[in-house]
Amino acid sequence: MSDTTSPALQTALAYYQAWTSHDIDKAMSYIADDIVCDTPAGRLEGAEAYRAFMGPFVQIVTGAEMIAAFGDDETALVMYDTHTVPVASAPGAEYVTVKDGKINYSRFVFDRAPFDAARNAAS
Amino acid sequence: MSDTTSPALQTALAYYQAWTSHDIDKAMSYIADDIVCDTPAGRLEGAEAYRAFMGPFVQIVTGAEMIAAFGDDETALVMYDTHTVPVASAPGAEYVTVKDGKINYSRFVFDRAPFDAARNAAS
Repeated sequence: MSDTTSPALQTALAYYQAWTSHDIDKAMSYIADDIVCDTPAGRLEGAEAYRAFMGPFVQIVTGAEMIAAFGDDETALVMYDTHTVPVASAPGAEYVTVKDGKINYSRFVFDRAPFDAARNAAS
Repeated sequence: MSDTTSPALQTALAYYQAWTSHDIDKAMSYIADDIVCDTPAGRLEGAEAYRAFMGPFVQIVTGAEMIAAFGDDETALVMYDTHTVPVASAPGAEYVTVKDGKINYSRFVFDRAPFDAARNAAS
């Protein structure tokens, strides 16, 4: 499943390992200061905005399994399932570009609908 | 981006080419009769259910670009952006397993929220 000869995938997997272990500081060590990230809600720019996006999510993650992971020299693509406090199964996919061991672009795809529904049910 | 030495990816890309060209019959020629497909809304089983899921979506697609595509002997993982009538940018990711040139399992990840919002706005 994982071609660990891909430098970009190595970074993507180390990043995944960190955030799924709730270690946001370590996760951020793989994120470039000038990261650009396209999320379902729009574009984020810079590590501070990225941390503000990922931090709250990491706190509600209770588990994760990698579904598939591929990469080449400069890019990687992963899909995983996550288990979270409000949503039992919340799969996501991430495409990243990596430079000098840091993710400088990422595109996230995940379904916001169950999170919206959980929020509406709670309010 | 695309490792076309991967047989599974060849099938996934041929399938992608067909449905983004609005050719649902050709797209279905790459789908196994006993396909199992996990979508954001739940699990579908069998080609008929799959076609009922993809058919309406294919009709509203106005364009698509592949973002990343990888594969190995039996699996492939792709991420693409689609342009649709109700939602200008609707990226998705698909993990597939392929046997004998046909997709027999797929997992879709995409954001239902903008489609829900467009439907609510129209009603």
